[in-house]
Amino acid sequence: MTNPAALSPDEARALFRDGLRTPTAGWCAGWTQANLLAVPRDHAYDFLLFAQRNPKPCPVLDVTEPGEVSCALFCGDLRTDLPAYVVYEDGEPVAEVTDASGVWRDDLVAFLIGCSFTFESALLAAGVPVRHVEQGRNVPMYRTNRPCRPAGAIGGPLVVSMRPVPAHQVADAVRVTARYPAVHGAPVHVGGPAALGIADLGAPDFGDAVEVRPGEVPVFWACGVTPQAAVMASKPPFAIGHAPGHMAITDARDADFLVP
Amino acid sequence: MTNPAALSPDEARALFRDGLRTPTAGWCAGWTQANLLAVPRDHAYDFLLFAQRNPKPCPVLDVTEPGEVSCALFCGDLRTDLPAYVVYEDGEPVAEVTDASGVWRDDLVAFLIGCSFTFESALLAAGVPVRHVEQGRNVPMYRTNRPCRPAGAIGGPLVVSMRPVPAHQVADAVRVTARYPAVHGAPVHVGGPAALGIADLGAPDFGDAVEVRPGEVPVFWACGVTPQAAVMASKPPFAIGHAPGHMAITDARDADFLVP
Repeated sequence: MTNPAALSPDEARALFRDGLRTPTAGWCAGWTQANLLAVPRDHAYDFLLFAQRNPKPCPVLDVTEPGEVSCALFCGDLRTDLPAYVVYEDGEPVAEVTDASGVWRDDLVAFLIGCSFTFESALLAAGVPVRHVEQGRNVPMYRTNRPCRPAGAIGGPLVVSMRPVPAHQVADAVRVTARYPAVHGAPVHVGGPAALGIADLGAPDFGDAVEVRPGEVPVFWACGVTPQAAVMASKPPFAIGHAPGHMAITDARDADFLVP
Repeated sequence: MTNPAALSPDEARALFRDGLRTPTAGWCAGWTQANLLAVPRDHAYDFLLFAQRNPKPCPVLDVTEPGEVSCALFCGDLRTDLPAYVVYEDGEPVAEVTDASGVWRDDLVAFLIGCSFTFESALLAAGVPVRHVEQGRNVPMYRTNRPCRPAGAIGGPLVVSMRPVPAHQVADAVRVTARYPAVHGAPVHVGGPAALGIADLGAPDFGDAVEVRPGEVPVFWACGVTPQAAVMASKPPFAIGHAPGHMAITDARDADFLVP
């Protein structure tokens, strides 16, 4: 297969539409990736307000009109063009599918939320290693003990992604990612996983464990799986999310989200 | 009266609650001011999405729970503690009142939206004049020919505020205000009012005209009256806004909205 980093969003989405199931870290270099959460219109206000109140984990990049399956940010078909989806009923994940068109509903509103994969090419360009890309794994993600600020019927814990960073490069990792506030920005926590309620870095709640080498510090960024943790905690009747790490590849450029 | 700049938010709100009606530019130095728009819960999603899609004029700072009249950002009573309100029925301004408790409804959701008065002390500290404060007037505001991106049933034109800036200080005004993205940030337009559809700077749609002196350039910032222009254009059944320039003085510090 062609190097995934060299693919255009259209090319990658066609592969996913044809059934390829893979984490998307490192895919389509320079193109912004996004988290997906689709909820019934009746629940959309609570989720949009939840996102507004928790902008660090839930930076909203775009929102579809009810029943529409594309938007300015994403010219593909949100039902089929991601590698994998999780379907929730009453907060329970009831299915994981590579094509959501059979379960998509006309009353769904889809939120596209910034993803930290967006700043990984900037980290690499600054010489900061990105271990899960090196190791060909999905990024490790953890539920924390930090509650988000609730909105209406929706609440839940902050979810974080973790990247091990050599101690002498932690400041670089902060500085580089702080320039991308719309895709989670600077870390929320550096070192000290126990303070976040994370007992074992080797057992992530989502994604894969990665190696943390001697001299490296685990660095935690707010994660766009947070809205799915809110679905699990708050139990709306129906929702569809991306499978963690299996993102929507959008038609926006990473550079669009860079601040000076 | 005590110098309004030296008052605390509580002290200013008590004066407004007692009936004082005045524009608030220059009041409570260092404390953040906010635009108010309260709409029925049934219309709140469209307005919140409108704000999300138009973050430059509509940066949401906080949102009340339905029926509540205060929130984390504003410890006072939103029905009484602003200097003046405009009441809308079917998009028509039907009353201007200094106390909205008689018309407030239990199903209202109130949005507090960033206000450019917040960065005026930073402009003054940088030596950039703020003419409407100098002249003891309300800031001039204009409807433009630029449509906002609509959301559901809500749409309308961008509204801007204008400050005349000496040509050699325009770059300073851009640089200083860009550091406050949550309160409209950098200007949307510098010079050339005709390109925004503004025929006569001397006839603002809201607020007062101010003097533009030789060698000064009119500089335009996105304005939090934009949601009220959307009310007028989109005609929801009911809404309450602040009277333009007569803001909610919040319990947040200007410095809270400063980015590095």
